[in-house]
Amino acid sequence: MTAAPAWTLLVVCAAVTASVPVQRNDPETQEHCGYESCPPIKDGMINVHLVPHTHDDVGWLKTVDQYFFGSQNNIQKAGVQYILDTVVEELQHDPKKRFIYVETAFFWKWWNRQDDSHRHQVRKLVQQGRLEFIGGGWSMNDEAVTHYQSTIDQMTWGLRRLNDTFGKCGRPRVGWQIDPFGHSREMASIFAQMGYDGLFFGRLDYQDKMNRLSSKTAEMVWQASDNLGKDAELFTHALYNHYSPPPGFCFDVLCDDEPIIDDKHSPDYNVDNRVTQFIQFAKLQASFYNSKHIIMTMGEDFHYQEAHMWFKNLDKLIRYVNLRQANGSNINLLYSTPSCYLKAVNDAKLSWTTKQDDFFPYASDSHAYWTGYYTSRPTIKYFERLGNNYLQVCKQLYALTDLGPEDQVDLNALREAMGVMQHHDAITGTEKQKVAFDYARILSRGIAECNIITNTAVNKLVPLRKEYPTPVWENCLKLNVSQCAPSEESKNFVVTVYNPLAQVISPYIRFPVTGSSYKVQDAKGNSLPTQLVPIPEPVQNIPGRMSQATQELVFRAVNLKPLGFQSYFVSQVKSEESNTYISDESNASGNFGHKTYYYTTNRRGVLKTLTTHGVKFQVAQAYGYYEGAVGDNEEAINRSSGAYIFRPKSSTPKIMPNRSQFKTFKGPLVSERHEVINDWLSQVVRIYTDEQHTEVEWLVGPLPIKDGVGKEVIVKYMSELSSKGKFYTDSNGRELLERTRNARPTWHLKLEEPVAGNYYPITSRILLRDTDKKLELAVLTDRAQGGSSLKDGELELMLHRRLLHDDAFGVGEALNETAFGKGLVARGKHYLVGGPSGNVLTVYERQLAQEKLLTPWLLFSRADKYSFESWSKTYRMEFDGVKMPLPANVHLLTLEPWKGRSLLVRLEHILEKGEDPKLSKSVTVSLKNLFAPFEIVSARETMLGANEWKKDSSRLQWKTESNSIDRHEDTHQGSLNHAEDILSVTLEPMQIRTFVVEVKYAGK
Amino acid sequence: MTAAPAWTLLVVCAAVTASVPVQRNDPETQEHCGYESCPPIKDGMINVHLVPHTHDDVGWLKTVDQYFFGSQNNIQKAGVQYILDTVVEELQHDPKKRFIYVETAFFWKWWNRQDDSHRHQVRKLVQQGRLEFIGGGWSMNDEAVTHYQSTIDQMTWGLRRLNDTFGKCGRPRVGWQIDPFGHSREMASIFAQMGYDGLFFGRLDYQDKMNRLSSKTAEMVWQASDNLGKDAELFTHALYNHYSPPPGFCFDVLCDDEPIIDDKHSPDYNVDNRVTQFIQFAKLQASFYNSKHIIMTMGEDFHYQEAHMWFKNLDKLIRYVNLRQANGSNINLLYSTPSCYLKAVNDAKLSWTTKQDDFFPYASDSHAYWTGYYTSRPTIKYFERLGNNYLQVCKQLYALTDLGPEDQVDLNALREAMGVMQHHDAITGTEKQKVAFDYARILSRGIAECNIITNTAVNKLVPLRKEYPTPVWENCLKLNVSQCAPSEESKNFVVTVYNPLAQVISPYIRFPVTGSSYKVQDAKGNSLPTQLVPIPEPVQNIPGRMSQATQELVFRAVNLKPLGFQSYFVSQVKSEESNTYISDESNASGNFGHKTYYYTTNRRGVLKTLTTHGVKFQVAQAYGYYEGAVGDNEEAINRSSGAYIFRPKSSTPKIMPNRSQFKTFKGPLVSERHEVINDWLSQVVRIYTDEQHTEVEWLVGPLPIKDGVGKEVIVKYMSELSSKGKFYTDSNGRELLERTRNARPTWHLKLEEPVAGNYYPITSRILLRDTDKKLELAVLTDRAQGGSSLKDGELELMLHRRLLHDDAFGVGEALNETAFGKGLVARGKHYLVGGPSGNVLTVYERQLAQEKLLTPWLLFSRADKYSFESWSKTYRMEFDGVKMPLPANVHLLTLEPWKGRSLLVRLEHILEKGEDPKLSKSVTVSLKNLFAPFEIVSARETMLGANEWKKDSSRLQWKTESNSIDRHEDTHQGSLNHAEDILSVTLEPMQIRTFVVEVKYAGK
Repeated sequence: MTAAPAWTLLVVCAAVTASVPVQRNDPETQEHCGYESCPPIKDGMINVHLVPHTHDDVGWLKTVDQYFFGSQNNIQKAGVQYILDTVVEELQHDPKKRFIYVETAFFWKWWNRQDDSHRHQVRKLVQQGRLEFIGGGWSMNDEAVTHYQSTIDQMTWGLRRLNDTFGKCGRPRVGWQIDPFGHSREMASIFAQMGYDGLFFGRLDYQDKMNRLSSKTAEMVWQASDNLGKDAELFTHALYNHYSPPPGFCFDVLCDDEPIIDDKHSPDYNVDNRVTQFIQFAKLQASFYNSKHIIMTMGEDFHYQEAHMWFKNLDKLIRYVNLRQANGSNINLLYSTPSCYLKAVNDAKLSWTTKQDDFFPYASDSHAYWTGYYTSRPTIKYFERLGNNYLQVCKQLYALTDLGPEDQVDLNALREAMGVMQHHDAITGTEKQKVAFDYARILSRGIAECNIITNTAVNKLVPLRKEYPTPVWENCLKLNVSQCAPSEESKNFVVTVYNPLAQVISPYIRFPVTGSSYKVQDAKGNSLPTQLVPIPEPVQNIPGRMSQATQELVFRAVNLKPLGFQSYFVSQVKSEESNTYISDESNASGNFGHKTYYYTTNRRGVLKTLTTHGVKFQVAQAYGYYEGAVGDNEEAINRSSGAYIFRPKSSTPKIMPNRSQFKTFKGPLVSERHEVINDWLSQVVRIYTDEQHTEVEWLVGPLPIKDGVGKEVIVKYMSELSSKGKFYTDSNGRELLERTRNARPTWHLKLEEPVAGNYYPITSRILLRDTDKKLELAVLTDRAQGGSSLKDGELELMLHRRLLHDDAFGVGEALNETAFGKGLVARGKHYLVGGPSGNVLTVYERQLAQEKLLTPWLLFSRADKYSFESWSKTYRMEFDGVKMPLPANVHLLTLEPWKGRSLLVRLEHILEKGEDPKLSKSVTVSLKNLFAPFEIVSARETMLGANEWKKDSSRLQWKTESNSIDRHEDTHQGSLNHAEDILSVTLEPMQIRTFVVEVKYAGK
Repeated sequence: MTAAPAWTLLVVCAAVTASVPVQRNDPETQEHCGYESCPPIKDGMINVHLVPHTHDDVGWLKTVDQYFFGSQNNIQKAGVQYILDTVVEELQHDPKKRFIYVETAFFWKWWNRQDDSHRHQVRKLVQQGRLEFIGGGWSMNDEAVTHYQSTIDQMTWGLRRLNDTFGKCGRPRVGWQIDPFGHSREMASIFAQMGYDGLFFGRLDYQDKMNRLSSKTAEMVWQASDNLGKDAELFTHALYNHYSPPPGFCFDVLCDDEPIIDDKHSPDYNVDNRVTQFIQFAKLQASFYNSKHIIMTMGEDFHYQEAHMWFKNLDKLIRYVNLRQANGSNINLLYSTPSCYLKAVNDAKLSWTTKQDDFFPYASDSHAYWTGYYTSRPTIKYFERLGNNYLQVCKQLYALTDLGPEDQVDLNALREAMGVMQHHDAITGTEKQKVAFDYARILSRGIAECNIITNTAVNKLVPLRKEYPTPVWENCLKLNVSQCAPSEESKNFVVTVYNPLAQVISPYIRFPVTGSSYKVQDAKGNSLPTQLVPIPEPVQNIPGRMSQATQELVFRAVNLKPLGFQSYFVSQVKSEESNTYISDESNASGNFGHKTYYYTTNRRGVLKTLTTHGVKFQVAQAYGYYEGAVGDNEEAINRSSGAYIFRPKSSTPKIMPNRSQFKTFKGPLVSERHEVINDWLSQVVRIYTDEQHTEVEWLVGPLPIKDGVGKEVIVKYMSELSSKGKFYTDSNGRELLERTRNARPTWHLKLEEPVAGNYYPITSRILLRDTDKKLELAVLTDRAQGGSSLKDGELELMLHRRLLHDDAFGVGEALNETAFGKGLVARGKHYLVGGPSGNVLTVYERQLAQEKLLTPWLLFSRADKYSFESWSKTYRMEFDGVKMPLPANVHLLTLEPWKGRSLLVRLEHILEKGEDPKLSKSVTVSLKNLFAPFEIVSARETMLGANEWKKDSSRLQWKTESNSIDRHEDTHQGSLNHAEDILSVTLEPMQIRTFVVEVKYAGK
């Protein structure tokens, strides 16, 4: 009856570090993991798959380290080190026992502290399928406010580490998103593309769950992409009882449920009762599912610190429940894993319903819509996005400059910090304040480590001479509040602008300066036109800003090469030597913008209509705030608005009076309106010459709370568009999903929170379409925010929140962020894009989104001892990373050092089907001569997670009810080239292809 | 550096069941336990002996079973099964680690559930000294309210089980009484006599502790007997920090202290701080002790459920603290045990102060005198004493009737139940109500099991014919409330009176009957004089009493043989056939008593003077109660009176008005006064003809609480004795200790609780002496009670308590006992002995105490179908267990089946030195022909605990400051015969000698 034959115990498995995915080709006898290792089931019975598991938040009430070591236990009794210690101990004693582990951030922290003997034991357990990794990302990432690039990265890094150490037995087969607060379609698509066979989660809308259970559709095939067909289909299971054990059967040291007492002489003997209870529960659960299998999650948050307690009682439970079979019971308990459950369900060859939308928003009851966290802690959400930007820059420069075998920790610090940030209590803002500070610390440290790489890489590229002083390249991470030491303090300095996109761009560059006239010279010595723009007073006065600068210098970096950089020599000069336009305050009346993109204003100077792409339509903007509901959280109706929950006291926000003061500054490069709405709210409306969108830079805070009222600040963009209840939001920054106000696609919604219940996560954009007027209005964000369209023609985004009460979902603190003794100030950008709907605007939005996600990275080097001439003789000022730009619809999603001397490359088609007659077609790119510094000599395609060769992937097949034949037969399946070496890569709309490439650097 | 050389790990030790103590004579190489296994210390350093330990109450807030299985964890998170599971696991991984285990009740419950492999592992750990048993009794017995017989029994049974399984490596070397609420001198004496080398405890009076620490006398040699000399000397250690780890270093899953975080990259890295803190604490502690060793108790109540958590952090603590030695630190940490600490201290060859008194009462602060529990739950305290009575009867009958090898569980159930009852939260009454019920259940079950033995034994002795119906012998356990089904329901029945003493006695027998005239015939058919006495109405009305009887039948069982029985045939007959005196109500005036022992009364009939032994002196009696103090327990001054604490609101009790109603019944056998003091208080004052003491049978309850006031009921015996502040109380029923009101022998007492602080535990008697008038007044009790002499000439005993508030020492309940919906009623007896002080009275008290402890046991058999003639022809009606009675000063303390066919015999000299010119001398008894049913063919003397041959015992020697030469050179050391076979046994005053005897039964 044991899952692993006895002889497997005798196999001594050597330690292996796989340098590429699935490198290990040990004879089958050596390993017994994956589906083959699944425990036997009993036909004709209800097989109850008991899954011992722990849910280990990578930070929440305590920091990652506090959770790992089990410190600060007065906050929460949780110590991951003990979980892994004791689980491994228990597994060794009994081959029937199973355990799954999810959060690899913790696993490796633990692994690094193990000696060889323990590592050997763990390898053996993994190779026998007894310890199984599922999920496997660095953290269990949130799905609402994460960007797909970072999700893919954090999954990839988690899987990479597993693959390195455990080979194919370390490859997770199922997604395990048991705790995130709603589920995105994109995440399901990513899991599918990574080769996962299924997804399990715990949280879905309470109405949805009721419907699905009663209609037996809590299991389904999720068709997670409108573009990718079967490649993005994923069997999905909504768990019956959250991720908890059945009530009364929690045997952890953190629980108080009764143990199984099998001493017949004891007055507390309870076997008969407990078995009966359990069987009743199992039968009830089974009645809601289709197969003869049910899964029970035997664990909870940070359970198994004393693994023995759990397992000892599970042993007894299994024994005594199964003994009932002799009396005719048809309930069969077994230690199992989610993948073994999945395989058993798959073997049943049933037909499944499908789903095409997503699981947002998540409501746990009629007044608890988890839509507040879409915005909570806006500065952390921005910092994370900045981290991604820099991580990509860092990886690319590492790869481009051949910094050697990727065995250094410098890159890993930021990789792992970003992995941590994706956690569903990190970027979400649902952690305690102290923990938020620690996340910032971790991310800062990762960025600092990466700065070593960018310095090393750039300094490898720039020297023109053998002997030269090594420049120091500084990051200016606080440009968002117009603070940058080198540009403010140096009279002469070099700013090197690196372009992480694989296309040529010509971005506007700006940074704070303290002088009054500057000369900016490009590599060729040309003096570029520059413009000085005042820094608005509210920005200058942001608490904590350490800068004397009152102006920013703007210039345009024309034709910045893909994966290349251009250095600009900036020198403070006499005004007569400068080419600087000094922005003066202009008359506010008249148009605002430039020839092909401008606003008209009304008499009071308020923007009124936008003219772009030859059409003119009314737009307006308004700031406002909701007052957060306050209650004791005892009943649904008394829920407070908090870190998770958005619950406005009234459905009508308080709109700021539209009599703001504003100043207008116009100039050759950029025109700006500096508007002050009130003490704690201001904005800059900015239109760069030659750009077809409006940049709205908002500044919110410190939010006043003297009135004892929590506030949730929104901005509305109002237009004449007749959007008929529809709007569109991105899914993790990729595909668009259509939203219908006050409705859900798969059930009849009963909505008691008309505002919060219409909020959706906006990772990168929200837009409206007017099909009659053929107009579109889109807002792109620089970070995730909650958003909606509560009235036709209107877009609403929530910018910042400051609340005074906890919403009673565990964090135990009000979301009341402060800094420097005041309410936290947040600053950010919206990019307003509008005009005739259709392919032009769509492509513009897509490209703009990429440009704003991976903005050019500025590296500053103080050059007071240099002139342009001396600098340009010593250092190269231009670098081009690719031989030719990629097509407009192809995004270089990933370029990073991989294993040994190989690199990891991901190419992505950034358009959906039908978005553009030309660009939405398949496109072919040759890898061979793509990159300038090296030649790709071979490429092997992997699944999206880079932990399995594409050719080796064989996912489980599922029949759907809607169509017994696979839908999307017309997909691009056929066009995929599965040959081992494919240097010519064809991409279909929205497709991402991943390659491990071997390269030869020039001159080597 | 490891304690056990590596090769010991390779030794595979065979399973052994030792059938006699220390039977195992394995070569030294096989075992490495005891002091030889102690870890190396570092000379010149302060060696910190870290002792990983758990304190597992054998019932307290949860029942024994609930604690074992870890159920009801909402009450207290505690599961002993997990403690032993995980500790054994941890110990196996590291030979340096040590653990001690104390409460064998739990250990065997666990052991019984282990498979051979686990048992083998545990044996190995014990044989290498890594798992060490200390204490080793069935429970960690209380020391105040326990009787020495039961303490010896419970220790013996615990040690016996350890010896059976682990041989000499299972022999505890130190007493470990870390939690009991004060410490008796007798217990120390018992430990010493059992061969223990030392005693550790945690609780002593706060003033005493301060004094001892500041004078470095927290370690001492306790000279624990005025009679036994060095045999009763015990090195004693008062622990520095209770039994807790140093503040901040509690690494259990139940604690929230910070783990050792040794990741230098973590912001939570704390090694330097923690090490510094620990070293500071160690130095502070070391400053209060004399040697270069200190002991730290690394554990708490029910710790080590997750042993790994404790050990993992201790490993780090040891490592990092010891690393400091490289920088000059002189602190050396090691895993150790109390015995290894003790050995190291002994090796230091220092000189120690001595102590001759005891550690009662215990006060934890100026208003928390733990003297309430001396009386708490009086009915449990009585039931326990009844259990001991029956256990001795049961053991004796088992041995006398050769029921075969002692491998049956029948006897063990009561042995173990009594072991549980001795626990310091059982008999003490400091458990929760539900747990008290469970104790009663356990004891009832033990008694029921024993009833099988007494039935079997008696039925083996009585048959006169080959064919006969087997009589059923019923216990009447509720004779204390005049309830007995067979005597009430049968017209004819037999009562068999068994005498568990080794002396001839002639006790008065009484039981309730429903008829009006009876004939009682002895074995020879003689019709005995009988007397019917009314049952007082308050007794008849006790809630829950299930009896219609209104009278009790009294007769005297003359010349009951030692360890023998006499059956009496009782038949309800016509009055003319009966020899029954029916007690009528008499005139209350006049003397009360009999010729040589009587009271005079005043005009109102109140007893006034007692005449006995030719002297006449004033005595009076008064009942009263204290009102329990009520407070929030936040500060000492606000302590409530509760289960542990006695704290009267006022030092003056409310005395019941002395106008009680009473009736007097006189008769040939007994004279009684039935007095009703109030609704909830009454008594019977009883004088049996031919006895020289007064029996006071008190009945208290239900105590009224409608006034919201908790009450603590006392009785005072007032006399003309000028006792000059002195009184005497027994120590666990053996030696007497002199008490001085408002004073302690070893320090200047500052007393803020003048009543509670003068209370002492009265296990069997309290007495006053008037040295001028040469008078003595003693009260013997039938159970433990708190008592004092608060005024000269007065004795005060607390009978019952009902309180409405918790005293905040953990039990979390008010001591508010109820039964049948009302406050619990308690009934009990005092035996008042008085007269000229001197040997006659002293010997009388000693013998009376024995007679009342081991009262004749009544077994009833319904005999309605029999006449005396038919019964006496079928069944033997007399049995004599010994060939001749033992001398008056020798008590047969123990006769019980031991291992195989051997028996365990203990003989005890019951007098102290100088108590009687003749009887206080040494006395010699021959074992050979002592018992009637068998001959003793060989006897080997053991230490008191029967787990070590006396000849093998070599206790550690300690030098005392008072005298570098051993005191008591004149003790009986020389007179002990250490020969292997000694059938002639000489006993010195108060000496107990223990023998394992091989016997030959007559006719075999």
